[in-house]
Amino acid sequence: MLETISAAQYELVYNAFSFTIAVMGAATAFLFLNRGQVAPIYRTAISISGLVTFIAMYHYVRIAGSWSEAYKILNGQVTVTGVAFNDAYRYVDWLLTVPLLLIELILVMNLSRSETVAKATKLGSLAALMVILGYPGEISSDPGTRWLWWSLSMIPFLVILFDLFVGLKQSIESQPAEARGLISQARYVTVVSWLFYPVVFVLPMIGMTGGAASTAVQVGYTIADIVAKAGFGILIYMIAVRKSEAEAGSH
Amino acid sequence: MLETISAAQYELVYNAFSFTIAVMGAATAFLFLNRGQVAPIYRTAISISGLVTFIAMYHYVRIAGSWSEAYKILNGQVTVTGVAFNDAYRYVDWLLTVPLLLIELILVMNLSRSETVAKATKLGSLAALMVILGYPGEISSDPGTRWLWWSLSMIPFLVILFDLFVGLKQSIESQPAEARGLISQARYVTVVSWLFYPVVFVLPMIGMTGGAASTAVQVGYTIADIVAKAGFGILIYMIAVRKSEAEAGSH
Repeated sequence: MLETISAAQYELVYNAFSFTIAVMGAATAFLFLNRGQVAPIYRTAISISGLVTFIAMYHYVRIAGSWSEAYKILNGQVTVTGVAFNDAYRYVDWLLTVPLLLIELILVMNLSRSETVAKATKLGSLAALMVILGYPGEISSDPGTRWLWWSLSMIPFLVILFDLFVGLKQSIESQPAEARGLISQARYVTVVSWLFYPVVFVLPMIGMTGGAASTAVQVGYTIADIVAKAGFGILIYMIAVRKSEAEAGSH
Repeated sequence: MLETISAAQYELVYNAFSFTIAVMGAATAFLFLNRGQVAPIYRTAISISGLVTFIAMYHYVRIAGSWSEAYKILNGQVTVTGVAFNDAYRYVDWLLTVPLLLIELILVMNLSRSETVAKATKLGSLAALMVILGYPGEISSDPGTRWLWWSLSMIPFLVILFDLFVGLKQSIESQPAEARGLISQARYVTVVSWLFYPVVFVLPMIGMTGGAASTAVQVGYTIADIVAKAGFGILIYMIAVRKSEAEAGSH
């Protein structure tokens, strides 16, 4: 069942969705257009960054449409129409984009082919598992069920974090000095923006209820998506530009 | 509450929105297509000019849709439907595009990397602050509240103008002679087109009321957006072409 919300809450969420459509569309155009500005070896990473924001733009168009079908606003009064708000769009989006985000980071590091394949397979699979385990909790309104799936989903999440900080340490030290700082920063952006998701997930379980909770959940996921996808994509682009320059200079 | 307007006023505003969608779409296509005509160093500036018009086109599609949902025109009679006209689209647009417009101008000047980052951060943040401070005034119908936020918003506006005319003076003098005139002109286009916004904002506070006021506000903002985004983007393109030619000739 959808919560009753105020007109101001409805509009805040709607405008956050519309803002995100514009941001994801602009990030996609930027990444696709400027792909040629980096060395050929990094172009796949930039293409994938653009695919992530493109997929997210598509889902935000759907999410905004579903949101405006779920509520009717007339003369400042909000009524629930009875049409369900489709929560699954977010999970379908994450199932595609979260593994791709980790693959972007691995590709821009330009490791050996075997290491790239091994790390991309491992981190990509863990990311997909994390999203799949979160979904049964998201669609439940029972706090016990939500905590169960939240905990299960946190296991692959923590393995990913461990791998980013311990498993990639050696690979990061072998990066050119000009890019090392940015790559390290990309790991922190990943961790900080990804931490939003489990935190937003628990808001309804720790006392936030009604319209305030559903507004906070929608706006929270939206901010996390902007940072983790568009912000992260631009960071990957900057890393690729710096590495291209460093490597061109060294020949 | 929406003002009652005449059928002629409704159509004037609607056609102004539709005109703007066409202009922004055409400017985006032009900038993206001709990005390769300038030297690689200026391509980011051209990409960003195209992103600005692309983001604006998206918002004008939304604004035109919201306008036609807010009013019903049947047999020449206008009735207010009760669906709110979403004023926030403009502010969401400006929050994204106004910082990017200043970044276009800084990038096409091709300053040192540190100066570029410093000026882009400073002017971009001031521009975002200016837009954020305007919004609480825009959604208020109380003249006192509108004047308060208008005045607060004018502070970053004046700092930006000061910076464009005093802070950038030295950088402009170091530009190639072929482009100096156009760059100086780009600053004037910025100032003149940007002055439209605070002037349009005060129209309802200085005696314009009812349908005439809301028509003037919508058409005024639309004209300002066309000049400040599409017109300015083409000017940035011309500067980049002149500078590319001048620099190719000097080698």
